[in-house]
Amino acid sequence: MEEKTIEREVIYQGKIFDVEKHVVELPNGGTSVRELVYHNGAVAILLIDEDDKIVLVEQYRKAFESMSLEIPAGKLEIGEEPLASAKRELEEETGYKAESLEKMFSFYGAPGFCSERVDVFVAKGLTAGAMNLDEDEFLQVERYTFEEAGELLASGRITDAKTIMAIQWWQLSKLK
Amino acid sequence: MEEKTIEREVIYQGKIFDVEKHVVELPNGGTSVRELVYHNGAVAILLIDEDDKIVLVEQYRKAFESMSLEIPAGKLEIGEEPLASAKRELEEETGYKAESLEKMFSFYGAPGFCSERVDVFVAKGLTAGAMNLDEDEFLQVERYTFEEAGELLASGRITDAKTIMAIQWWQLSKLK
Repeated sequence: MEEKTIEREVIYQGKIFDVEKHVVELPNGGTSVRELVYHNGAVAILLIDEDDKIVLVEQYRKAFESMSLEIPAGKLEIGEEPLASAKRELEEETGYKAESLEKMFSFYGAPGFCSERVDVFVAKGLTAGAMNLDEDEFLQVERYTFEEAGELLASGRITDAKTIMAIQWWQLSKLK
Repeated sequence: MEEKTIEREVIYQGKIFDVEKHVVELPNGGTSVRELVYHNGAVAILLIDEDDKIVLVEQYRKAFESMSLEIPAGKLEIGEEPLASAKRELEEETGYKAESLEKMFSFYGAPGFCSERVDVFVAKGLTAGAMNLDEDEFLQVERYTFEEAGELLASGRITDAKTIMAIQWWQLSKLK
């Protein structure tokens, strides 16, 4: 089923992603074109605080010109380990330090054309501290109870894939 | 919190997506650059067959050079309604016709840079028929019980965001 690249064109080399166009050989011997976005990967963290509230960050998402309510996340620096990145992002975006970060799952959000893999962790043993955002990051930290988070999902207010997955995971962990 | 575009450069206009680079004005009056992938959107369908098995399609994903097990899905044609698209994709990829398709939720898989919104439906009232794939589509239809689907999630074998969300939704619908 593999699609072997027989021609490769680099379209764009950016800061966040690269774009390439590949001519591939199909399983039946024919060819097709694949437009591809290469991304270094990201991490995200499910954070339940000492009051059993989920910590979410709200920020403007330029790609769809809207505010978005999401679990803390960030992209991997080149050569950075996902676990180290998750610790760093957690502290930068929320001020929390975690005693341990346990991997929940990994996902591809747009497998048809994008290589970005996101590793999702759950944070345990929290100590609150001060936030430390990137210069071009503007976000608001919010906390929601289990019931409120369920309502945010059911009402369609949360549209971010990693956040839907993380809240469902939280719901399942309480119901099982 | 809005980020207003003050300069816009079109980098690439493709068949699947366009790429643009925007200089934006930040809430503090500073500026930053946003690299953006514009995609027309997609649909996906949770399909539980007459034996209470989930129908998944396995296909090669060039972006990460691996096979991927996913719920049936496809991109919206220009001007196409999500519901009509979901009906079409369901029939093309699995051969099933559904009496009704009910919207479960919508998500953005890569909100940091990509506009692709995926509408996810659950199919009800199924009639089996023949598949009808695109010329460059090679996929295998597979069926898994509720228990098997849970194991595929727990073991990390499923890494596609929409499929993780759909299986967790199925799990929650049985537990609640």
